[in-house]
Amino acid sequence: MKHLLSPLDLSVEELNNLLDLARDISHNPDKYSKRCEGKKLATLFYEPSTRTRLSFEAAMLNLGGSVLGFSSANSSSASKGESVADTIRVISCYADIAAMRHPKEGAPMVAASVSRIPVINAGDGGHQHPTQTLTDLMTIRELGGSLDNFTIGLCGDLKFGRTVHSLISSLVRYSNIKFVLISPKELRIPDYIREDVLKENNCDFVEVESLDDVIGDLDFLYMTRVQRERFFSEDEYLRMKGFYVLDKAKMAKAKENMYVLHPLPRVNEISVEVDDDPRAAYFKQAQFGVYVRMALILTLLGLDK
Amino acid sequence: MKHLLSPLDLSVEELNNLLDLARDISHNPDKYSKRCEGKKLATLFYEPSTRTRLSFEAAMLNLGGSVLGFSSANSSSASKGESVADTIRVISCYADIAAMRHPKEGAPMVAASVSRIPVINAGDGGHQHPTQTLTDLMTIRELGGSLDNFTIGLCGDLKFGRTVHSLISSLVRYSNIKFVLISPKELRIPDYIREDVLKENNCDFVEVESLDDVIGDLDFLYMTRVQRERFFSEDEYLRMKGFYVLDKAKMAKAKENMYVLHPLPRVNEISVEVDDDPRAAYFKQAQFGVYVRMALILTLLGLDK
Amino acid sequence: MKHLLSPLDLSVEELNNLLDLARDISHNPDKYSKRCEGKKLATLFYEPSTRTRLSFEAAMLNLGGSVLGFSSANSSSASKGESVADTIRVISCYADIAAMRHPKEGAPMVAASVSRIPVINAGDGGHQHPTQTLTDLMTIRELGGSLDNFTIGLCGDLKFGRTVHSLISSLVRYSNIKFVLISPKELRIPDYIREDVLKENNCDFVEVESLDDVIGDLDFLYMTRVQRERFFSEDEYLRMKGFYVLDKAKMAKAKENMYVLHPLPRVNEISVEVDDDPRAAYFKQAQFGVYVRMALILTLLGLDK
Repeated sequence: MKHLLSPLDLSVEELNNLLDLARDISHNPDKYSKRCEGKKLATLFYEPSTRTRLSFEAAMLNLGGSVLGFSSANSSSASKGESVADTIRVISCYADIAAMRHPKEGAPMVAASVSRIPVINAGDGGHQHPTQTLTDLMTIRELGGSLDNFTIGLCGDLKFGRTVHSLISSLVRYSNIKFVLISPKELRIPDYIREDVLKENNCDFVEVESLDDVIGDLDFLYMTRVQRERFFSEDEYLRMKGFYVLDKAKMAKAKENMYVLHPLPRVNEISVEVDDDPRAAYFKQAQFGVYVRMALILTLLGLDK
Repeated sequence: MKHLLSPLDLSVEELNNLLDLARDISHNPDKYSKRCEGKKLATLFYEPSTRTRLSFEAAMLNLGGSVLGFSSANSSSASKGESVADTIRVISCYADIAAMRHPKEGAPMVAASVSRIPVINAGDGGHQHPTQTLTDLMTIRELGGSLDNFTIGLCGDLKFGRTVHSLISSLVRYSNIKFVLISPKELRIPDYIREDVLKENNCDFVEVESLDDVIGDLDFLYMTRVQRERFFSEDEYLRMKGFYVLDKAKMAKAKENMYVLHPLPRVNEISVEVDDDPRAAYFKQAQFGVYVRMALILTLLGLDK
Repeated sequence: MKHLLSPLDLSVEELNNLLDLARDISHNPDKYSKRCEGKKLATLFYEPSTRTRLSFEAAMLNLGGSVLGFSSANSSSASKGESVADTIRVISCYADIAAMRHPKEGAPMVAASVSRIPVINAGDGGHQHPTQTLTDLMTIRELGGSLDNFTIGLCGDLKFGRTVHSLISSLVRYSNIKFVLISPKELRIPDYIREDVLKENNCDFVEVESLDDVIGDLDFLYMTRVQRERFFSEDEYLRMKGFYVLDKAKMAKAKENMYVLHPLPRVNEISVEVDDDPRAAYFKQAQFGVYVRMALILTLLGLDK
C-alpha cells in the first residue's frame, strides 16, 4: 500500500501514468462512475480548506464512492487531546482511504506511518500540498500537450508559497523547462530551491522584479498572492504592488497561447477583467483538480486498471 | 439553463407544473428514487440554517444523487477573502446544481450571473427565500385542493417577515384570494406590499390587530414569530403578546377545516397543546418542503420529464 | 417501532440477536452492502463527537444508505431556540432513522417520545451511551467467545465514567462474571452501582487501588482515563498516577490471552508501547463498533431479516 505525502513520492513514470489516467477520466467519466462503489473516503481536515475538501469529495462521489469526515479541528476529537496516530488508526476502521489537511508539517506522515489505509496529504502547514501540484502539472500538460519545452513564469510570493516550491521541484524532472521567477526581492525563492533544486538540476532560470518586462516570453504564467505584510516597508509595497497584478494591459503583451494559472483563492492579484480572456485557465484548473484526485484515489486503492 | 432566485422567477404555468411534479413525487417516490444518480448538489451555506440545508440534502438523496458543501461561512473559503463569484465558478467544477444561503441580499444573484450550473437561492438576508414560498404554496394546494378561493390569515410580524411578503406576492397571481393581515400596528406589512402588490392586483384584504376576532373566517392561518424587541414599548408588548399566540382556546373558534401553517422554527407563538390538533399542518409542511425541492432540482436539471 | 435510549432497553435475547447479527455482518459484509439502499440516517450531534459520529456514518454507508445531519449545536437550529421535540418532528420528514448526541441527559428520550422515526441515543451528557456499551459487549464476545465466565477488570475513573456503569449493568445479566474494580478511592464506583446493580445481582466483585496487584487475574482489562483534577490533592495524584497507566511492565504480568479494551480517545493511560502487543484490542474495538451499529440500524429499521 502506498500513500501520497509529497509530489516527489511518485517517480516520473508513476506520475505520467497518473496523468494519463486523469486524462482518460476527463474524456470518459462514465467509464469510472462506479469504480469506487462501496468505498469510503475520509476527509480529515484539521483546518478548513473548502476548495480542497470539496474537490476530494467531488472526486470520490464521481467515482461512485462515498465520503465522511470533518471540516475543522474543533469538530474533531483532536480537541479531546487525541493524537493524529490514534485518529488514523480509528479512521482505518471507518474508511478505505483518507485525505488529511493539518496545520502542522509532518502530521500526514505520522498518520501514514501507522495507518492501515492510504493517506493523502491534503496540505500540511507550509510544507507540502501534493494534490495542488498534481493539479498544476495536469493543467500544464493538458493545455500545453506535454510537460517539456516550456518557459514558465512564476509570479508573486515565491518565498513562502509552497505550491511554487512543489511545482518547481516537480518540473525540473522534465526536459527543457525554463523558469522566469518574478517577485519582489523580499519574496524571492529560498536558497534551497535555487541551489538544491534549480542549479542542481542544471535548470535554466532568471529572477526578475517586474512581470511587465517578461510576460511576452512566457508559455505559462503561474500567479500567486503577494500579501502586503510581507514587504519590508509600506513604501516598498506601494512602489511595487502593481508589478504583481495581472490585468488586461499586461495580458496584451503576452503570447496568444500563454495560459494563466492560479492555485486559488485569488484576492486581487488577477483583475476580474482577465476572467473572460480565453488564456485565463485558473477555473479550468479547478476542474483538472477533480480529475487528478479521481486518478489518485483509484491508483492508491489499486483500482486504476 | 435557469436559476431560482425569487419565487416570481416562475410563471404561473411553470409554478403549477412544478407543484404537479411535487405532488406526483409525493405519491410515487420510488419512481424518482434514481432520477439524479450521478448528480451532485452543492449546499453553500454562508450562514447556518439546518432545516433548509437538510431539506435540500434529503431532497437530493431521495433522488439518488449526492451532496457536498459547507454549513457555515467560517468553514468556507469566504474567510480567505474569496468572492462569491469565484466560489461558484469553482463549485461549477464540483457539482451539477447549487443551493446558496447568504446573509447578504443579492449574493445568489451575483453567483447565478457567472455560474455554469443552476443556482437556487436558499435565503439571502431579509430578501428572498423562494423554496420556503414554494413549500407554503404546495402545502396550501395539497391541503386545500387548489390555490384559488381561500381566505388566508397571516399573523405576527408582517413587517420584517420575508416569507410573508413572498407568499402574498405569489398568491395574488391566483383567483379570489382574500388576505386577513393580523399584526400589531408596529409590524404591519410594508407599504410596497400594500400598494404595489395587494392594491395593484385588486386583491381583497383587511388589516386587524387581534387574531381572536378573525380566526373564525380563515381557511388557512399562517403564523410567524413576533419578537419582543420589535414593539415600541414594553407596555405595548405586554398588552398585545397574547394576541399572537395560537392556543387551544383560539383554535376552538376556528373552522373545522382551517389549517395552521408556520415556516418554523417556532418559539412560543404556537402553543404545543395545538400540535395534536389535526388542523396543525406545520410539520406536514416540512414534508412538503422536501417534495417541492425534489421537484425543483429535477426541473432545473432538466430531469423532470 | 423501537428506539435505543439505554443499553438495558434490549432484553438479553434481543441483545444476543443483535450481537449475532453484528457477527454475521463482520464475516459477510457484502451480504449487507445494499440492505439500506434509499434509507437515510440523520446524525444530530448537539455536541461534537467525531469518533461516534463517523462510526454511525460508516455503518450507514456500509449498508448502502446515506447520511445527513449536523456535527455541533452552533450549526443547528438549536441556536434559534428550537426545541429538541420540534427538531426531531422535522427530521422525521427528512430521514428514516436518527442518532442523537446531546449534552443534556434525557434529550434523546424527549425526542423519541414524539419522533416518527427510530431514535438512537448516541450519548446524552453523563447519562448513557448505549452504542459504546454494545461495542464493548461485542468486543468481549468476539474475542472471548461468549459473555459468560470472565474476570473483567475496570480501571481508572469508575465514578464519573458512564461507559463503565453501562458495561457493568449489562454484564451482570450474564453468568459468572467477576468484576475487579481498580481506582483511586476518590473515583470508586457510585453506591447505586455497588448496591443496586452488583449486590442486587449477587455479582462477585472486588475494589482495589492498584492495577499491578490484580492484572494477572484478569481475562479482560477495560481502561479509562483518570483526570488530574479529580484527585483530592496534588500529593494524592502524584502518589497514584502511575497506578493507572498501562505499560509494557504491567502487561508482562498479565495473562497471555488477556485483552485490553478502551472506549477511546486515550490520552496517556495506555502507553503507546502497548499498541503493538497482540492483546491490545482497543483499535479492533473501533471496528466492532461499526459492525454493531450496522446491526442496530438494521434492527431498528426492521431490515434485520
